[in-house]
Amino acid sequence: MRKVIFDTDPGVDDAMALAFLCRRPELELIGVTTVHGNADIDTVTRNALFLKDRLGFSAPVAQGSGVTFLNRRGNTATHVHGENALGNIAIDTPRATLDGRRGHRMIIDLVRAHPNEVTIIAVGPLTNLARALDKDPEIARLVQGVVVMGGAFGSNGNTGNVSPVAEANIHNDPEAADAVFTAPWPVTIIGLDVTQQVVMDAAFLRALGECGETGRLLHDVSRFYHGFHQRSRRLDGIFAHDSLAVLYAVRPDLFTLRHGPVRVVCGGIASGQTIQKPEESPFPIGAWDPHPNQSVAIDVHVQAALKVYADSFD
Amino acid sequence: MRKVIFDTDPGVDDAMALAFLCRRPELELIGVTTVHGNADIDTVTRNALFLKDRLGFSAPVAQGSGVTFLNRRGNTATHVHGENALGNIAIDTPRATLDGRRGHRMIIDLVRAHPNEVTIIAVGPLTNLARALDKDPEIARLVQGVVVMGGAFGSNGNTGNVSPVAEANIHNDPEAADAVFTAPWPVTIIGLDVTQQVVMDAAFLRALGECGETGRLLHDVSRFYHGFHQRSRRLDGIFAHDSLAVLYAVRPDLFTLRHGPVRVVCGGIASGQTIQKPEESPFPIGAWDPHPNQSVAIDVHVQAALKVYADSFD
Repeated sequence: MRKVIFDTDPGVDDAMALAFLCRRPELELIGVTTVHGNADIDTVTRNALFLKDRLGFSAPVAQGSGVTFLNRRGNTATHVHGENALGNIAIDTPRATLDGRRGHRMIIDLVRAHPNEVTIIAVGPLTNLARALDKDPEIARLVQGVVVMGGAFGSNGNTGNVSPVAEANIHNDPEAADAVFTAPWPVTIIGLDVTQQVVMDAAFLRALGECGETGRLLHDVSRFYHGFHQRSRRLDGIFAHDSLAVLYAVRPDLFTLRHGPVRVVCGGIASGQTIQKPEESPFPIGAWDPHPNQSVAIDVHVQAALKVYADSFD
Repeated sequence: MRKVIFDTDPGVDDAMALAFLCRRPELELIGVTTVHGNADIDTVTRNALFLKDRLGFSAPVAQGSGVTFLNRRGNTATHVHGENALGNIAIDTPRATLDGRRGHRMIIDLVRAHPNEVTIIAVGPLTNLARALDKDPEIARLVQGVVVMGGAFGSNGNTGNVSPVAEANIHNDPEAADAVFTAPWPVTIIGLDVTQQVVMDAAFLRALGECGETGRLLHDVSRFYHGFHQRSRRLDGIFAHDSLAVLYAVRPDLFTLRHGPVRVVCGGIASGQTIQKPEESPFPIGAWDPHPNQSVAIDVHVQAALKVYADSFD
């Protein structure tokens, strides 16, 4: 079992990813940290506690950053996820309670408590991870790996989702992402290049809705998100997004990776764009070169990915 | 016959494109303007006059800008094109002489002398075109069209050639390119997405070398450039680059275009990146939106392109 910290801004696809994570015997959830992104920090933290109640996990939930690494106000995406960021389903006041630590502090504590055993799966803006690195840079050497859902690398004809080149998680805190990608820990980035290949279509979501209480919850949560995809993308289904970061932790063999340093554009019209300099590419020395190689997913086995997800709820 | 101004920094592929242009009965060369880029302005201007002698065209040659639109020193690419930027062949002192006007002034004069009849084919940094627009913005409404070799839009797996996202012509003067692409004239951009698809291989260049004096000249000029492609790209041949902008003016039917506003990243790690917001894409209002649609080439018929070029010298 691999120990996992899940850093998240729930969010519909976050909820679907967290439920998937809780079902996987290979993964042991040891902490959940929240971050601004799909909604403001109070909303997403309340949602994380609600999910703790409904999914029944025991790991502590700590509230993370409500602003960016440079202390700017975060954006929200309630037009995508609903006003309450969980598809506007009814949400009872959670019984679960918060861990008293701030998100980045809990990350540091858990990593130091389990050196070289922890994988961080981060599916929102990377503010908490950047703050943890900033407070305690040595954790980079103590983490087993970081898996990020974010970014867009332009392969497979895929582009950004908030600009022609930027994906929302990275766009919402580019300075944090640049700090995380250039730190000396192994990062695998699962961006739109692969997440937009994996569509959970209407039939898939209906079938999921028949898989017990959790399945029904995920189906209900996904209604608003499904409507957004229909309106904006003419897609009768949803992109699997965050669940693919969890999938990578379980089945890395389903992904094709490209290696090389990754930087993030901070500011200007391309702000939030993730750019990899692939290993052995012929470009002159530049902004990428003092930095460690990271791994970027450029392809995924779509049908196998969907099957692993669905089978986890059967 | 379409009247053409050729804006150029010769340059090996510039010479090959200019020779091609002179052979095409559909095109009437009415002016050549030089610009910093493949070498300093004195070198590329001398080369343009040398090519006037050797190719025998009558159009005037005017010296354009030796610095960028923001008056920064230009880069050079003598490691690609040779110290004299024409593959280090022996170059006699040209008999042809310069037109007395500055490059951007000759562009303005020629466009105003032939309203709605002139196509500008620009295959270097876009400094002269930006200066012409700056001095006389009305010319944008008086030009039939602008064809640019430059940029990289990430389609077909192609990337930049001086950074993971930037192509040299645009990288050498991003502010000029942004001004040209956002002006109200129809621009067609032939970037690395298509020019790196069209390889003139060793056999093609050998055959070209047998096509009379001009063919021999082009073959000889291409030796150093060929060596660069072998060393840096493991390619036994050369990318056709600038010739494809001329080809577009002759055979637009060989290209697939994508429409939408185009902006250029000015500064930062992505400086010189060209970004199109394709028509009807779902992104929120951003830096692209007040600007006119332009056309970006995303595919080309490779074999037909090579045949049109070769047949022009037969």
